[in-house]
Amino acid sequence: MRILSGMRPTGSLHIGHLFGALQSWVDLQEKGHECFYFVADWHALTTHYNETGEIVKNSIELVKSYLAVGIDPEKSTIFIQSEIKEHAELTLLFSMFVSVSRLERVPTYKEIKQQLSERDLSNAGFLIYPVLQAADILIYLAEGVPVGEDQVYHIELTREIARRFNYLYEEVFPEPEPVLSKVPKLLGTDGRKMSKSYGNTIPLISNEQELRKMIMPMITDPARKRRTDPGNPEKCPVWDYHKAFGISEEDAEWVKDGCTNAKIGCVDCKKLLLKNMREKLEPIWERYNSLSDGFVRDVIVEGNRKARNVAKETMQKVKNAMKLDYDLLK
Amino acid sequence: MRILSGMRPTGSLHIGHLFGALQSWVDLQEKGHECFYFVADWHALTTHYNETGEIVKNSIELVKSYLAVGIDPEKSTIFIQSEIKEHAELTLLFSMFVSVSRLERVPTYKEIKQQLSERDLSNAGFLIYPVLQAADILIYLAEGVPVGEDQVYHIELTREIARRFNYLYEEVFPEPEPVLSKVPKLLGTDGRKMSKSYGNTIPLISNEQELRKMIMPMITDPARKRRTDPGNPEKCPVWDYHKAFGISEEDAEWVKDGCTNAKIGCVDCKKLLLKNMREKLEPIWERYNSLSDGFVRDVIVEGNRKARNVAKETMQKVKNAMKLDYDLLK
Repeated sequence: MRILSGMRPTGSLHIGHLFGALQSWVDLQEKGHECFYFVADWHALTTHYNETGEIVKNSIELVKSYLAVGIDPEKSTIFIQSEIKEHAELTLLFSMFVSVSRLERVPTYKEIKQQLSERDLSNAGFLIYPVLQAADILIYLAEGVPVGEDQVYHIELTREIARRFNYLYEEVFPEPEPVLSKVPKLLGTDGRKMSKSYGNTIPLISNEQELRKMIMPMITDPARKRRTDPGNPEKCPVWDYHKAFGISEEDAEWVKDGCTNAKIGCVDCKKLLLKNMREKLEPIWERYNSLSDGFVRDVIVEGNRKARNVAKETMQKVKNAMKLDYDLLK
Repeated sequence: MRILSGMRPTGSLHIGHLFGALQSWVDLQEKGHECFYFVADWHALTTHYNETGEIVKNSIELVKSYLAVGIDPEKSTIFIQSEIKEHAELTLLFSMFVSVSRLERVPTYKEIKQQLSERDLSNAGFLIYPVLQAADILIYLAEGVPVGEDQVYHIELTREIARRFNYLYEEVFPEPEPVLSKVPKLLGTDGRKMSKSYGNTIPLISNEQELRKMIMPMITDPARKRRTDPGNPEKCPVWDYHKAFGISEEDAEWVKDGCTNAKIGCVDCKKLLLKNMREKLEPIWERYNSLSDGFVRDVIVEGNRKARNVAKETMQKVKNAMKLDYDLLK
């Protein structure tokens, strides 16, 4: 199956991104699918057109994170959206038959406008960004798109656009399916929703000391005020982290028993979590730190080249289907 | 001055296009300006996305008409919009900071929707087409745009977009000025507005016989019912044609005197018009008929190449200005 997914280069990733997306990207790659993973830098413009200074840096950083978590450039194609102009071309062509009212009905259109009310989201780019997203996916003839629940509607719109194109012109596009993975619930270190703006996230790329500084003061079951109070793991964000980071059955028993019977303190529990987190994260940090600028650049150049070839091939099919191919006259 | 203008490939041209646009294009070229004249085939999609079968044929035909009226490929650059992907790229970038409500306020947006109420103009492509038009103009850093009165507003929006880009990022774009030429009023052969849908137009490319068939039954001053009735040139569409096709002062006197005093009949007057029209149009027909497919193709290929080079240069400036240039890291 051909898979496509991407992320916006909006700054450093946190562990929510690892479990919410990157983990499943690696899994799909390891299952032998043909994967295209890209940096959605044009998408960043839809909400941040007036703050472009960091986009290139963040994009490179994002590619490094892809590589660090295990996306293998020998197996998957890693590329930068804005380097493949054909995405813009296909967006323009799609925009000819997607109605404005259809785009206004996309649930995230109003939602994000409300959420980011301090931003200027009145621009046309923000309105048409689901069309750009459809072009991102369809230009690679992708069949599967790993997404979060909140993006399923966008895939539905992408399917609609594929159907409409195939109906109006010729069968060119498959209808991609969303690939949903079980995403563990992970709250921020203060017990609120994990969000960079709250400063309560655990960065994906970090080190032992920093990780300790984030985890040790982390909020636990609010009812367990003293060491001697019994706790309830189901009400403790740390317990969610334990599950996400793959606690062993034996350790899980020890935590549950220790917490609910006040046999262990939160510090003991967090020390175990730290150990498990390090086991998972340290290889990522090490890979990250071993990446030379030259290597990352080569990965991007090669990925762009591969992606561009596929995109060009698809655009040739699109032009043939739409009878907009001037080569026919040559 | 760098000049840019274009036309949609929506079928054969008529003499209204000659006086409304092409004549001034040639004049600007002959004045030594650096002219870019293009075929706006993507624009044709905004209103005709579901009728693409004729676009390529009509585009080639349009280029032939450009050449026939005297656009000289040695002096001007003739190219096809859809062959220069950079227009789509710049459109996407501009759309990030042009608001939806701004586009909804473009007067032609509602007007054309009403005029073409039988067409589906609810698409996003139709909404953003003034942005595409701005990209068409600004990507060549054009300073002058020959347009009709109805397009002046679009140039104003283009200037706004140029200013906004220059303000948000860096000074890249000049603010282009509309170049208005005196357009003679020319009605259709039935006295109504000249329009292909009324079948009352005089084709630009024609022959003597056909021209005669169009002109001889042409409506004249409705008050002049009989040969012996005096007429009023100011109420006669044929008189407007005489002026457009450059009647001599002497002949003009003869017509005015003859008509108002019933000394000549409309047939006499039309015969003179036919002679003058042939003088103007026959060289165009001859040039048109002498154009080989190979020559036209070469003109397009070379024009596309030149246009693409300029577009790529501008996009490099745009990316530098927006700090979206990945080459900085190489």
